[in-house]
Amino acid sequence: MMNDSIDIHTHVVPENFPAYAGNGANVPWPSMAPAHACHRHVMISGKVYRTVADGSWSAARRLENMGPMRVARQALSPMPELLSYWLALEDARALIRYLNEQIAAMIAAAPERFVGLGAVPLQDVDSAIRELEYMLRELKFCGVEIASHVNGVSIGDARFEPFFAAAEDAGAAVFVHALRPAGQDRIVGAFPEQAVCFPGDIALAAASMITGGIAARHPKLRIAFSHAGGGLAILLPRLVHAWNKISKAKESLAESPATYARRFFYDALVFDPAAVRFVVESFGSSQICIGSDYPFNMGDLDPVGTLEKAGFDAGVLAAIRSGNAKRFLGL
Amino acid sequence: MMNDSIDIHTHVVPENFPAYAGNGANVPWPSMAPAHACHRHVMISGKVYRTVADGSWSAARRLENMGPMRVARQALSPMPELLSYWLALEDARALIRYLNEQIAAMIAAAPERFVGLGAVPLQDVDSAIRELEYMLRELKFCGVEIASHVNGVSIGDARFEPFFAAAEDAGAAVFVHALRPAGQDRIVGAFPEQAVCFPGDIALAAASMITGGIAARHPKLRIAFSHAGGGLAILLPRLVHAWNKISKAKESLAESPATYARRFFYDALVFDPAAVRFVVESFGSSQICIGSDYPFNMGDLDPVGTLEKAGFDAGVLAAIRSGNAKRFLGL
Repeated sequence: MMNDSIDIHTHVVPENFPAYAGNGANVPWPSMAPAHACHRHVMISGKVYRTVADGSWSAARRLENMGPMRVARQALSPMPELLSYWLALEDARALIRYLNEQIAAMIAAAPERFVGLGAVPLQDVDSAIRELEYMLRELKFCGVEIASHVNGVSIGDARFEPFFAAAEDAGAAVFVHALRPAGQDRIVGAFPEQAVCFPGDIALAAASMITGGIAARHPKLRIAFSHAGGGLAILLPRLVHAWNKISKAKESLAESPATYARRFFYDALVFDPAAVRFVVESFGSSQICIGSDYPFNMGDLDPVGTLEKAGFDAGVLAAIRSGNAKRFLGL
Repeated sequence: MMNDSIDIHTHVVPENFPAYAGNGANVPWPSMAPAHACHRHVMISGKVYRTVADGSWSAARRLENMGPMRVARQALSPMPELLSYWLALEDARALIRYLNEQIAAMIAAAPERFVGLGAVPLQDVDSAIRELEYMLRELKFCGVEIASHVNGVSIGDARFEPFFAAAEDAGAAVFVHALRPAGQDRIVGAFPEQAVCFPGDIALAAASMITGGIAARHPKLRIAFSHAGGGLAILLPRLVHAWNKISKAKESLAESPATYARRFFYDALVFDPAAVRFVVESFGSSQICIGSDYPFNMGDLDPVGTLEKAGFDAGVLAAIRSGNAKRFLGL
């Protein structure tokens, strides 16, 4: 019952954004508008993108909610739709810097309870590396949140390798979150795209970090995938099979895809004890961390409870509650 | 050690195709060309689409291979790239009729050992229903193979509901196979797209049959998903969570997504005993069947062996080896 857990997957939306000050026309620059009690609307291009609770920006509200969640410390990362890869670089740099400073201000309110995983403008790798260095040096963040792809280009693409090399060298944690997922045009009905498609897209991102070779070439990179890597746990034996059967695949990777997958970290955000057990069985009990998606409604607001129902022994439970997150975040 | 298993997931490629006899220009009509011993190239638009072994067309070779695989009976379905949804309707109808007659000829060679899951031109729902009726009545097939989407449109889209209604009424088995998957543009490296992306695409198809309501409205439809439903097992608790949290989603479905998912059938093609256990835990031991992907190199040529390593009791093993397939196929 100790409140010692570390939650690597929580999101920040600022209470306000500065007005757009760039030179573009029809830029999808976000703003905030009043909603019902304790909530605000995130407005993008004149529409409500999402309505979010005040835990999104209020350190005090977070601390209040963390008690019943039994979470000692949260990693704060931006709501992924704010990552701004689709904005012109100067606009993205301005918005991202603002986001990172807002996260830093929340950390300053309770430095023992929060750590930062900031944003970088990954549409320009050099700028992304400079923002990463700024966050680590000036804001004392643990690392960075990136999306599962950059405007449709897999993060496993060689063009992003210098960014991952810089993160590896600097000892920065990289948290990869699904965003604007593949297959949105192949779902139907009243369920939102993040419910149906996020697990597939984060699996593509994790698989691509293996199949493209970046994971093999950067063995000290500390990288975690949201939503427990989505479909990757089910997909991994198929990747191993392909590696064994297809000579081009085997020539491209020195070791089995499973070797690299078991170096990655994952949150345990699968909402079900049996699924948590399978994720732990697939990737190893040393690689799974608590992740709640706080404060969003697709989150698990009792992540420790879900974990406890999986029936792990005390050592595994402690590793998943905090030990693995300390290693991932470099605490 | 009995050779009593039923394999619901095997593919046929004819030894030859008739020359194209339609009126189109640059039609991607397939042909076959010689390759190394016991193999032929499938040629599409002048390129080798895939090189396939003679088990693809030879009933005798299949029977020879089924012994060591401990498979008593195979369901024969076309290689998915032959489903021809992208051809002009008259071209597709001609190719699909040829495929179905070829499958019927293979069944005639050993009617106790093979059953048919034929193709239909699902780009035109009325034509698809007519071909389904023909296959059931004239060719005595058990049912049909369809892809996870039709030219990018989810099979869960309302336009396809009359086809599923007809299959339900006729008692036809519907086997859904991944094809031209979402996210192909989000992978990198030397692994083929079917290795990395099929599990995500079949999950989208299965989820859409739930979220769009077709599964709820057709409770007697017998439908099976390839590759164990791909990411669906990991995704399902998230769908349940969304259904509980999002009022629009809950209003759209009378019962939990898990209720419908546990009515579907799935093959066990996940290459790993722990993954098979998780699939069985997720969907129920009554819903999983042997599926090998014979004779392709992304297949599991010891599907019964993989299953046996999962450590099920004799009753569950028997259900997965044959009992569930008999129910799915209506044998």
